[in-house]
Amino acid sequence: MRNIKLTLQYDGTDYFGWQRQKNTHRTLAEIIEGILKKILRDQVKLIAAGRTDAGVHAQAQVANFTTVSAMDNSRLSHSLNALLPEDIRVITAKDVPLDFNSRYSAKAKTYRYTILNRHTCDVFLRRYVYHFPQSDLDVSAMRKASAILVGSHDFASFKRADKKKRTTIRDLKDIKVMRRGELIYIDVTANSFLYHMVRNIAGTLIEIGKGKLLPESLKKILQSKDRKTAGPTAPARGLCLMKVEY
Amino acid sequence: MRNIKLTLQYDGTDYFGWQRQKNTHRTLAEIIEGILKKILRDQVKLIAAGRTDAGVHAQAQVANFTTVSAMDNSRLSHSLNALLPEDIRVITAKDVPLDFNSRYSAKAKTYRYTILNRHTCDVFLRRYVYHFPQSDLDVSAMRKASAILVGSHDFASFKRADKKKRTTIRDLKDIKVMRRGELIYIDVTANSFLYHMVRNIAGTLIEIGKGKLLPESLKKILQSKDRKTAGPTAPARGLCLMKVEY
Repeated sequence: MRNIKLTLQYDGTDYFGWQRQKNTHRTLAEIIEGILKKILRDQVKLIAAGRTDAGVHAQAQVANFTTVSAMDNSRLSHSLNALLPEDIRVITAKDVPLDFNSRYSAKAKTYRYTILNRHTCDVFLRRYVYHFPQSDLDVSAMRKASAILVGSHDFASFKRADKKKRTTIRDLKDIKVMRRGELIYIDVTANSFLYHMVRNIAGTLIEIGKGKLLPESLKKILQSKDRKTAGPTAPARGLCLMKVEY
Repeated sequence: MRNIKLTLQYDGTDYFGWQRQKNTHRTLAEIIEGILKKILRDQVKLIAAGRTDAGVHAQAQVANFTTVSAMDNSRLSHSLNALLPEDIRVITAKDVPLDFNSRYSAKAKTYRYTILNRHTCDVFLRRYVYHFPQSDLDVSAMRKASAILVGSHDFASFKRADKKKRTTIRDLKDIKVMRRGELIYIDVTANSFLYHMVRNIAGTLIEIGKGKLLPESLKKILQSKDRKTAGPTAPARGLCLMKVEY
């Protein structure tokens, strides 16, 4: 038995996320597993580091599967890229120890939320950014507020409203808010995330950037443990899984 | 009567070019004229600086039209962007003298051909680059060859095979071949271009980059005035109209 680790890049625009409870729609996992079955003649099960939502992208998602196939990894990734739609690419395929699990072995994952802060949207970036045209967002206020989130906290205010999880405590290792010309990046690193957590943090930081919330109010929002106190969920298209560390 | 100059950005992937002789397909001109008719209640005719082919993009296409409408330009561009599909954006709308013609008043147009020269394609760039994975292209050979094309020449070897034009002499003002990491840009500036000229130049430079043609051979290709001596037409997706100068 082998354990193979794939590093994948995808444009999530046309998919219903990595995986769904009820598999009624086109998900990334389904499509990749279907093509692996054709290539390996083996029904494998992919385990992903981050189960990205519908419309969310990945620069470097990691997913592993076990198989009895002896196929060479470079032939495997070549065959996958030949059969996969062009909005999904395999960057690398390599053997890892049998106890490696993309999700549970991950030490940290980094997501990037991208905002295009200018009058007119950019057609070449439109699928990968949240377009905010109304005014210049106050990035230094967003940055100041974001520092409040770093560390181990109960992130219940930033969970998906309808989700009940055993614990909503997460260790947020790092958050960076950067402006690069007309683009604003929010990079969030943690070992584990709640559903919609990055999009809810981004949505709240955008409210702060608009001046609708003060940077200090983020502390109260965090302490309230009440989803209704935080900002709206920022749109999926701006979110991208950038990196998984092991 | 007013003459209004629009600067437009578009992702050409899903369009049959700016304009077609036989209007059987979805063209950019048709769609924009249709929306202008709704907004201005005036059937206008757009004149574009470069009539881009199917699948070709624009960073800053220029198109003008005359109208009797008194609508404010900022309201016009706002209304256009509200009704246009999100792969077409109006960057600016402004009044110009009545004798301004986007096509005939242009002093120079610059097209960029983009090649992604790495093993695996990038999903976020896939619609905007020609992916060349086989080997590293020899950019210095391409650059050396490209210099041969600068100046006033008969570009018959780079015209569309089935096109008969009165004259195939064009003044190529500048050509730059640059590598930026895994991306190779070919920027071509001229006052006027033959159909498929930039894509045929790019296709020929790629053959030189592969080592299949020597840089010096470009001189013979140019002198032959025979389309069959040059390289293949590079795919439309890599081409973008960058700039029009007046």
